[in-house]
Amino acid sequence: MSALEPLLEFLSIPSVSTDPTHKEDVRKAALWLAERLKERGFYTELHETSLHPILYAERLLDPKAPTVLVYGHYDVQPPDPLELWESPPFSPTLRDGRVYARGASDDKGQLWAHVAALEGLSARVNVKFLVEGEEEIGSPNLLPFVRAHREKLRADVVLISDGAMFAPHTPTLTYGLRGLCYLEVRLKGARRDLHSGAFGGVAPNPIQALGWILARLKDEETGRVLIPGFYDRVRPVSEEERRLWPPLDEALLKGELGVEALPGEEGYTPLERLWARPTLDPNGIWGGYQGEGSKTVIPAEAGMKLSMRLVPDQDPEEVASQVEAYLREICPPGYTLEVLRLHGGKPVLTDPHSPPMRLMAEALEEVWGRPPVYAREGGTIPVVAELQEVLGAPIVLLGLGLPDDNLHAPNEKFDLVNLEKGIAVLRRFYGLLAGAR
Amino acid sequence: MSALEPLLEFLSIPSVSTDPTHKEDVRKAALWLAERLKERGFYTELHETSLHPILYAERLLDPKAPTVLVYGHYDVQPPDPLELWESPPFSPTLRDGRVYARGASDDKGQLWAHVAALEGLSARVNVKFLVEGEEEIGSPNLLPFVRAHREKLRADVVLISDGAMFAPHTPTLTYGLRGLCYLEVRLKGARRDLHSGAFGGVAPNPIQALGWILARLKDEETGRVLIPGFYDRVRPVSEEERRLWPPLDEALLKGELGVEALPGEEGYTPLERLWARPTLDPNGIWGGYQGEGSKTVIPAEAGMKLSMRLVPDQDPEEVASQVEAYLREICPPGYTLEVLRLHGGKPVLTDPHSPPMRLMAEALEEVWGRPPVYAREGGTIPVVAELQEVLGAPIVLLGLGLPDDNLHAPNEKFDLVNLEKGIAVLRRFYGLLAGAR
Repeated sequence: MSALEPLLEFLSIPSVSTDPTHKEDVRKAALWLAERLKERGFYTELHETSLHPILYAERLLDPKAPTVLVYGHYDVQPPDPLELWESPPFSPTLRDGRVYARGASDDKGQLWAHVAALEGLSARVNVKFLVEGEEEIGSPNLLPFVRAHREKLRADVVLISDGAMFAPHTPTLTYGLRGLCYLEVRLKGARRDLHSGAFGGVAPNPIQALGWILARLKDEETGRVLIPGFYDRVRPVSEEERRLWPPLDEALLKGELGVEALPGEEGYTPLERLWARPTLDPNGIWGGYQGEGSKTVIPAEAGMKLSMRLVPDQDPEEVASQVEAYLREICPPGYTLEVLRLHGGKPVLTDPHSPPMRLMAEALEEVWGRPPVYAREGGTIPVVAELQEVLGAPIVLLGLGLPDDNLHAPNEKFDLVNLEKGIAVLRRFYGLLAGAR
Repeated sequence: MSALEPLLEFLSIPSVSTDPTHKEDVRKAALWLAERLKERGFYTELHETSLHPILYAERLLDPKAPTVLVYGHYDVQPPDPLELWESPPFSPTLRDGRVYARGASDDKGQLWAHVAALEGLSARVNVKFLVEGEEEIGSPNLLPFVRAHREKLRADVVLISDGAMFAPHTPTLTYGLRGLCYLEVRLKGARRDLHSGAFGGVAPNPIQALGWILARLKDEETGRVLIPGFYDRVRPVSEEERRLWPPLDEALLKGELGVEALPGEEGYTPLERLWARPTLDPNGIWGGYQGEGSKTVIPAEAGMKLSMRLVPDQDPEEVASQVEAYLREICPPGYTLEVLRLHGGKPVLTDPHSPPMRLMAEALEEVWGRPPVYAREGGTIPVVAELQEVLGAPIVLLGLGLPDDNLHAPNEKFDLVNLEKGIAVLRRFYGLLAGAR
C-alpha cells in the first residue's frame, strides 16, 4: 500500500507531548505533516503556542462547494513501560497485517488516512485541516485557538477519526464521547522520611492515608463513586437510544482483558458503564521505597494521579471542584493535601442522524458491504465539544481503530485493513458530499 | 580525633546490601573492617554465605578473663531519594560536629566506636567480633551461622551498639527492641495496561484495590490494625516497667517530625506506641503512571511494601501468616494477589538489671556525669533474639546514635561527641569488667 511508507516515517517521530524532553520531536511531527499536506496542494500555517504548535491547512477549490474540516492530533502518549513492548515504540514494525508503534492508532494512523484519502481526489470539496500536538495533555492551547479563529475554521462538516470501530469488520459511526477530569493528588505527612522502627506508632504515613482516601472515593461493594453531587448532572439513557446500541460481546471483552468478571457500578450493564456512566480511576500512585528488597521507611510524601470520565451533562470544572472539596473533607488530620488540575475535556453527544452522518453511513455500507452500527465511545477528545459549540457544524466521528489497539499501553497497533478501507470510505464520502450539494 | 579518619574511609564504601549492583562494595566493607581488626591484634575469618560475607574476629588474651562478643553490621540502607541529600551519601562530610553519610549512625559509626575503643586497651578481656553485611535485609544468613557456631561465639556478655540514646546528652541503656515482619504485596488485574476511556467502567484497577485493602488493614478512626489475631500475643506493660520509663518530650518530637499531632493507636501514650505496641505501615507503593503530566491508563499491576513492627511475644512468621491469610480474605474479587515475605526479626526484652548492665550503667555515669535512663527501642536488630536464645549470655544494648540521626532517610548523621564519649564508655566498661572478675 503506497500510503504505508509515509505513515511509518510519521510513526518514527517520538512526539510525546507530555514529556518536556520530547518538545523538539513534537515540533518535528508537525513540520513533517505540513510538508505532506503541501505536497497535496494545501496552503499551511504553523501557529506557535506556549507549548506545541497547531497546524492549520486548507485546500479551497470552490467557494460554492461544501467545506470539510478535518481534526486530528500528531502527539502521542508516553511509551512506558518500555520493557513490555515487543518492538521499540518508535521503530514502527509490521506483523500480521498490523503496524505496531506508539501513535499507530492514536492518532497518527487515523489522521494519516485522511491525508492519504486526498491523493488525486476528483470530488469538488474544500478541505481544511486542524491538527494539534496537545491532545494527550488536554488541548490547552487548541480550545482558545478555535474560539479565536472561528471564521477561518468555518465548515459544513467536521470530520474526526480518533477512535475505534465497535468491533473488527464492523463499520461504526460514533455519536458520543465521554469527558475527562484529570487531577494529581499529593499528600505530605512528616517533614522528612522516617525510620519505621524509630517512629512507627507516632508518625503520619501518607501512603496509608492515600489508601483511606481511595476507599472513600469509590465504594468497594457497589462500585459507586462517593463524591457528593458527582452523579447529579448525569443524563439518563433513553429507551430509543438504547435500542440503537449493538449487543456487547461480554465473553470476547473478558477474554481480551484476561478477566473473569467486568467489575463496575452496580445496576448498569457493561455497555452503559462504558458509554453513558461516569467513572473514577486512579491512573498512577507512588510513595516510599519502590526498589528491590526492603527499606523500612515511612515516607514524608506520597501521591497519585486520579481521573474521572464524564458523561453529558457533567462539566469537568465543576467535577474538579467537587472532587477537590471532597478530598479536603476526607483527608485525615495531620496531612497536607495538594490538588493539581492537570487536564479536562467536556463530554459530547451529537445527532446520529444528521445529513453528513447519513452520507457517511452510505459510504461505509458501500465499502464494507454492511451498514454501520451506532456507538458512543468511552474515551475523550477534548476539542470536539468546543468545535460543536463554536462552529455549530455537524460532527462526524469516524473511528478507524479497533478496541484492542492497545491505546496508551505497550504494543499499540493499527490494522492495515482499517487504513485501507478508511481511505476508501473517506474518498467515497467526499464524492457523495460533492454530489449532495 | 584520631578515630575519625578511618571512619570516613569506612563510610565512603557504598555497602548497600539490598541492591545487587553493590554486592562488591558490601564485600569491600567487610575486608576493610577485617584489616582494621588485624591491625589491632585480632585473628579474623571471613565466612562466605549465599549473599554477603560474615566477619568473625577474636583477640583472646586469657582463658580466665571474661569474654565479650561485639555484634555490628557493615551494610547500609539504600540512599534514595538521592536528591534530598545535602552532601552525597557516600562522600562523608563534616558539618557542625557531625559526620553526614549513609551508615554514619546505622551502623558503621557505632560499630567503629567498638573497634576504636580497643586501641591500646590494657584491661584483660577477651573480645570477639561478629559483624554481618545483611542486617538491613533481615540477617538471613547470620541466624543459621549463630546456631552453627555456638561454641565459637560463646561469651559472658554480648555488646551491641546499633541504636539510639533516648535524647542528646542522655546516656541510655536499652533493654527492649521491636521485631519486624516485612512483606511485598503485588496485585494484578487485567492482562495488560488499559486506556481509562476505552475500558473505564468494566476494568479492574489494582491501584483502587490497594486502596480498599489499605483501608481494611488499619482503622482510620482508631489507628488499630484490623488483622485478626494481630494483638493476641502482645504482652502488656507492667506498672513496674512503666515507672522505669523516662518522660517523652512530645513537643520536641512533634517539632522534629514537623507535625502538629502524633497519630497512632487509640488508648496508648506515644511512648507506649513507640516501644511496646505493634504497628503496621506501608513503606512503599507503586502502580500506573508516575511521570510528569497525565497518562490515562488503568494499570495491569500495582504493589506495595508493607511492614509490621512487633513486640513480645509476637512472632514474625505467625504474623506473616496472619497478614497473608487476611489479605487473601479481603482482596476484592477479580484480582490476583501475590505476597512475598521479604524479611523478619523477633522482638526482644532483656533484663535491665543484669550484672553487665549494672557495670555499663556505672561506666556511663562516670563518662557522662549522670546515670543512664532505661529505654526500649522501636527498631529491630534481627540477630539479638537469636543471640539471646542460642548463647544465653546477658545482652547489653548501648545505643550511641540519636533520635534525629535520619536513619534510613536522607542526610543520615552521627554526632562526633557520641563517637568520642562512646569510645570512652566502652574503655571504662572493659576496665570495670576486667576488675569485676
